[in-house]
Order: sequence, then structure tokens, then C-alpha cells
Amino acid sequence: MKIAVFGWGSVGRGAAKAVRNAPDAELYGIFTRRDPSSIADAPAPVFPAADAEKHAGNVDVMLICGGSARDLPEWTPRLARHFCVADSFDTHARAAAHFAAVENAAHAGGTLAVIGAGWDPGLFSAARAVFGAVLPAGETLTFWGPGISRGHSDALRRIDGVADARQFTVPKKEALRAAAEAERTGIAAGMTPQQMHRRECFIVPAPGADRGELARRAAALPDYFAGYETRVTFVSAETLAERYSSPAHTGRVLRTGRTDPEGTDAESLQSAGFALRLGSNADFTGAVLLAAARAVFRRHCRGETGCLTMMDLSPSDLMTEEWEKNF
Amino acid sequence: MKIAVFGWGSVGRGAAKAVRNAPDAELYGIFTRRDPSSIADAPAPVFPAADAEKHAGNVDVMLICGGSARDLPEWTPRLARHFCVADSFDTHARAAAHFAAVENAAHAGGTLAVIGAGWDPGLFSAARAVFGAVLPAGETLTFWGPGISRGHSDALRRIDGVADARQFTVPKKEALRAAAEAERTGIAAGMTPQQMHRRECFIVPAPGADRGELARRAAALPDYFAGYETRVTFVSAETLAERYSSPAHTGRVLRTGRTDPEGTDAESLQSAGFALRLGSNADFTGAVLLAAARAVFRRHCRGETGCLTMMDLSPSDLMTEEWEKNF
Repeated sequence: MKIAVFGWGSVGRGAAKAVRNAPDAELYGIFTRRDPSSIADAPAPVFPAADAEKHAGNVDVMLICGGSARDLPEWTPRLARHFCVADSFDTHARAAAHFAAVENAAHAGGTLAVIGAGWDPGLFSAARAVFGAVLPAGETLTFWGPGISRGHSDALRRIDGVADARQFTVPKKEALRAAAEAERTGIAAGMTPQQMHRRECFIVPAPGADRGELARRAAALPDYFAGYETRVTFVSAETLAERYSSPAHTGRVLRTGRTDPEGTDAESLQSAGFALRLGSNADFTGAVLLAAARAVFRRHCRGETGCLTMMDLSPSDLMTEEWEKNF
Repeated sequence: MKIAVFGWGSVGRGAAKAVRNAPDAELYGIFTRRDPSSIADAPAPVFPAADAEKHAGNVDVMLICGGSARDLPEWTPRLARHFCVADSFDTHARAAAHFAAVENAAHAGGTLAVIGAGWDPGLFSAARAVFGAVLPAGETLTFWGPGISRGHSDALRRIDGVADARQFTVPKKEALRAAAEAERTGIAAGMTPQQMHRRECFIVPAPGADRGELARRAAALPDYFAGYETRVTFVSAETLAERYSSPAHTGRVLRTGRTDPEGTDAESLQSAGFALRLGSNADFTGAVLLAAARAVFRRHCRGETGCLTMMDLSPSDLMTEEWEKNF
């Protein structure tokens, strides 16, 4: 399948690596809003983003790599009218609206799309869905970090007066203890994501910016920081680059449930956990995008159109190996 | 959906509990080879196994709960001619033959079947498939135990001269250390299941049985013990019941891979893990069977026939919740 990457940031680079790793994919090209001649490290031809539609017949799946705050709500519906697409849209609160916009565009264009194809949303969404289906009487907890959140860093950088920023998501120690206790006792920990995580923001202020105002605006951003314990530290560009730029991330989905909902004994208590330890959040997100693109390509070839999430994809849609190998 | 349970052992009981837990299922009845009037604890009508076919129009999905050594290879193809079915066939080495037999029967009967719907094979197969698709340059390790293996215990009990038996699968300490090291360094541990596990057999010999001969026959059983470090301990029926009957089990699938296959740095190293801690292996297997039955029911309603594995099922096939909740 011929893959194109739309957006040449860290996830776009990760997606290009994933294409190189795949036995069944080749990289057709890269689309960027920058001047194509300014991209020195591209492993394939670089085209202007504005010209994307001209390449519609040449690309099997377009991997759309941009921020969820402003890029993807515009890019994915626009491109889905002409291409099968995959994005890693990651704003839980606006998922239904994004899905509807992409679904409309894909039906209009006769294409197939998948949104939220990263690790969360993405593989973690699939894990939550499967765990909830198998253990309906239970509770799911999702821990993120410690690690940089792309979406939250992106949201900070879009605040006027922020020159650069990184946001680390850190699970609270008391939440990790409560989760371990819930797994042992079966008694729901009953925690919200806001109670489970702290958000550490490292911001390089623009010259003359009001730091107090920046911190207030960051902490109040809806869908991102409102409701969270949010700490803002102002740093220089050098410090940000040296100390706060690790691309690593980690996360875990934990389901604790009872197969006998009235049970209180050890026999009725079951738990399922899915954990990721990522050297590069962006590379791994790119790898999930490419696997999702394979599913989109195969199912579009079978006549399917519209919008999907990772919960709609089976392992067989994603894999290249024979089933007997993994049975 | 109307569910029936075929085989009233520990997994059958687990499946019946799962039906009670599900918002969309009711238990039509239980089929047993024993005298139905001898089943005192049944939560639904009990019918003779030999009469199953007479109930074909009344059951949406039959959950087939039996041993993989002799029961399922006979039962699942027989029943798939008349019912949509789900089983938890667990002999990796004979999966392709079982699949082919069930697929033929299901096509002949116009039904849909899923085989290997447990945790391994089952959820672990799905995890191996997804992890391999996302991180193609890497290695997957699967650890089982400590815990009783149903299939292996069943295989021991079928040896002439064995009155009763339980088999505990135990991961070897050196294998756990090697896996942790591989996750840290990205250097493949290169271990086979045989190198990773020890098989501890606790056997109650029948009166007059030759213990040495029993131990030799156990260790030589193909697909089950041959090639494994196998320890046989002879115990009384009382000791077996008191000390070696915990229904708990545990297991883990670990994928370590590189998003840049030539990479040697921390950034290119990613790992994904899926772990289960089960208070009751049988109850959890029953819960997976019921979730798989939901997928079979829905897809058969949409006209699908033939045989599937858990790798062919999407989270959406399994779940009852709205996708937005798990996104």
C-alpha cells in the first residue's frame, strides 16, 4: 500500500519510520505547510500541503499528523473527502464531534477513515473496551506518564505569550497506591483522571509576557488542564531543551472486576492490565497510525466507507502474519 | 441473546456466571453428558447432551465447555452444524486442524463459530497479534503462571493409572530476569516457552499404578509436556484437594521492539505488556466465552458464517457500551 504522511512533525517522522518497518507499505510522499525545499531530512518526495488533493489517485492511505486542538478538526475532514485517512485525534471530550465531521466527509468522498489511532486514544481505547466487555462488573483506571503529552504541550504552545512549552503528565503516588489496593481487594478505587494525575507544565515565556497571566490561562484551559492539579514552571529555552524534552512516555490501563458480582472472595476477583513503556511517544504513535492504515486499506478495498475508531479494528485487520503464529 | 452451556464443569459454571453478569444475555439451558437429574446446582434447565440438536431453533449461541484433548475436537464441529458456537480450544499445535473442522461444519450448517475464546489462546492471541502489527521489529514473550493449567491437568487425568491430577505452570526465575533485561536493552531474549516455564504435576495414582511409568508417560505427552522441564509429585487425593487446587492463574504477554530497526538508543525502544491476574481461571475463561458469543451472535445476524478466532473480533464486536465511553 502507498502511504503518504501529512504533517512533518515528530509524529510524521515516526509514521515514516513505521512505513520503513512494514513489510507491505511504501512511502509515497510527505505533505507539509512549510516550504517543501526547507525539509532536508525527508525520506520521500515533499509536496505542499495545499496541493494534497492533486495526489488523490496515487495514495492508498494518508496518515494525518497534527495537533488535535486546531489541525486535525480541519485537516481530517478536508482530506477524508479525497483520501482514506488515519489520524491520532486525542481530545476525548470532542471525539464525537470529530467523528461526525470525518464520517460525513468520508461518506461524501467514498473513503474510509480511522480517528484516534494512537495509544490513548487508540490501543488503550481498545483495551478499555475489551476489558469492560469481559468483566462488566468492575472498574477501569487509566494511568498516563510520567511522560510528555503531545496534545497538552501543543495546547500550551498555542497560548499567546508562550514561546515554547512541554507538559509532563505524572501519576500521583497516592492514586497508584489506591489502584494496587483495588486490584487486591476488588473494592473500586473510584478515582477520576483529575484525581489520578498531576500536570507539570514547563513554559518558555515570550519576551515581556506576564507570567502570572500565562500560568492562569494554562491552568484554566478546558479539556486539557481545568480540574487537574497543574503546576507551571517557567524555564529558559536552553533548560527546556536540555532537561524537559525526553520523548519517552508510559501508561497503563487497569481493569479490576468480579466474575460473580456479589462475590467477595479471591476466586471471583480478576484483573487485566495493559501497559506501555515508550522510548518515543511520537514514534510509537506513528507505528499505531501505520497499523491502522493497513486496516483502513484492507477494509476500503472490501467496499467499506465512513469513519472508524481503533475499537472497530480487529487484530486480523492490523496484522500481516498468519493467524496460527499468534493463536 | 439466548445462550446455552454445553458441558457442566468449572468453565461451564464460569460461563453461566458470565451470562448472569451480562446486560444482553439470558441462559436458555445447560447440556450435560451426565444424568440431568444429578445436576443440583444448575441455574437453568438441564438437558441431555445427546438431545442438543433438538434445541437448535431456541439457542442463539452455544458455549462449548470441555477439554481440548478429546472433547472439543468432537463436540465443536458436531454442534457447529446446528448452532452458532464458541469454544476455548487451547492446544496451539492442533489449532489449524480444529479450525478447519469447525469451519467446514459451520459453512455446512450456515452458522458462525469462534474457537480459542479464552485467555490463552484468546485475549493473549489478540494481544500478540496487535503488538506484532504495531512493533514488527521485535520479539514477543508469553509467560503463564504460576497457576493451574486446565488443559494440562485434563491431559494428565486421561493417562491410564491417574486417579486425579493438577498441573501448575510456573515461569522460571531466570526467564523472568531475561525478559526484564530484554525490555531494558532491546536485545531479544530468544527464549522458547519450554525454556521459560517449568511444569509441576501433582498426581494421585490409581491403586496399584506404577508411579515411575506414570511419570514417564506424563513427561512424554506430546503438545503438553514433551520438551518442558516437568516435575511429577505423587500426592493423596486429600493433599491434592487441600494444597493444589487453587483456581487462580496469571499470565503476561510482553512485546519489546524497535520503531527504528537499526536503532540502538533508548528512543527507538518500545515495549507493550498485557497481564492478567485471575482469581479463577475457569470463571475468566467463561467470561471471555460469553463476550465472544456476543460477537458471534451479532455477526451471524449480519449474515456471516464460518469460523473465527479472537483475532478476528474487534472490541466493538465484544462490547455493550457506547464507543465514546472508552475512546
